[in-house]
Amino acid sequence: MACAWEESTKIRDVLIRPGTENDCNTIMDLIRELASFQGYPYAPQITAEILRRDGFGDNQQASFQTLLAVDRTTDKIIGYAVFFPFYSTWRGKGMFLEDLYVKPAHRKLGIGKLLLAHVSKRTLDSGGCQLRLSVLKTNPAKMFYSSLGFDNLTVDDGWETGRLDTNALEHLLESSGLTRS
Amino acid sequence: MACAWEESTKIRDVLIRPGTENDCNTIMDLIRELASFQGYPYAPQITAEILRRDGFGDNQQASFQTLLAVDRTTDKIIGYAVFFPFYSTWRGKGMFLEDLYVKPAHRKLGIGKLLLAHVSKRTLDSGGCQLRLSVLKTNPAKMFYSSLGFDNLTVDDGWETGRLDTNALEHLLESSGLTRS
Repeated sequence: MACAWEESTKIRDVLIRPGTENDCNTIMDLIRELASFQGYPYAPQITAEILRRDGFGDNQQASFQTLLAVDRTTDKIIGYAVFFPFYSTWRGKGMFLEDLYVKPAHRKLGIGKLLLAHVSKRTLDSGGCQLRLSVLKTNPAKMFYSSLGFDNLTVDDGWETGRLDTNALEHLLESSGLTRS
Repeated sequence: MACAWEESTKIRDVLIRPGTENDCNTIMDLIRELASFQGYPYAPQITAEILRRDGFGDNQQASFQTLLAVDRTTDKIIGYAVFFPFYSTWRGKGMFLEDLYVKPAHRKLGIGKLLLAHVSKRTLDSGGCQLRLSVLKTNPAKMFYSSLGFDNLTVDDGWETGRLDTNALEHLLESSGLTRS
């Protein structure tokens, strides 16, 4: 019980707020930390500037939303979530959670769960009925998601996800007689 | 060669155009056909009215885009694609292909590839660098996607996808002291 009390005290020192364009350098650092944690340190090919343009630019619809966990005592950003609307022709509106990350020194305090609760609120408030996410099968976070009721569509139903890269898309256009605008 | 010529002639009789709100009943029929083809006849829980509201309503940003394959000789819709913007913190903007379907009588003519080429054009024109999609491991369409350069992130890298359902989201809010707006 002392432990539970301690956790809730520490959570009270954490502020969850939307990211702004001024946070993009820090968010980009955290994106790289998360990629390294997953074993892909060189995977992020975007920059803070691209993040700023795509998520916070004035002249277009933002491509994603961000929520940050901030340590009130130091004003440091210690975790983040990136998510965007998703649509299912079986169930309708939902949200896709692209990233969820808490820095190692601040784990096991419930900060990830709190961030995810705020993402869940955004999902439900926007009329969504599900939050989708992808996780590496080797990522310890799988246990965290499972404990919250995550249905694994890959393992349970056999859904596999992949991509057609720029080269494949361009080849497809060319072989179909289409040109880019 | 005669066969290839015949195919290109038949493709010339196919028009690819965006769906409108007047097409929603037909699109909903095709969504149900695709679900049945995949072995989940009762999976679609949405209606043509929900599709109309989410994709074509005036008062909000559309949740998805549609492209339809129309047989010019009969003016019948014989295939469709549903897709929406996706964001990767590793690669930036992309598109997610939710559905791609061609009615059985019109397969093997290149109509699916033509629909996908038009989706690829939308992806590249919007600044995207990848098209993501999920496919059941038992779906014969996997061979079609593979032939076009589909990288299977589930099999190759171990990514698993799943969801937190409405119940899980509501439980998470409640246990975190948050309420829906």
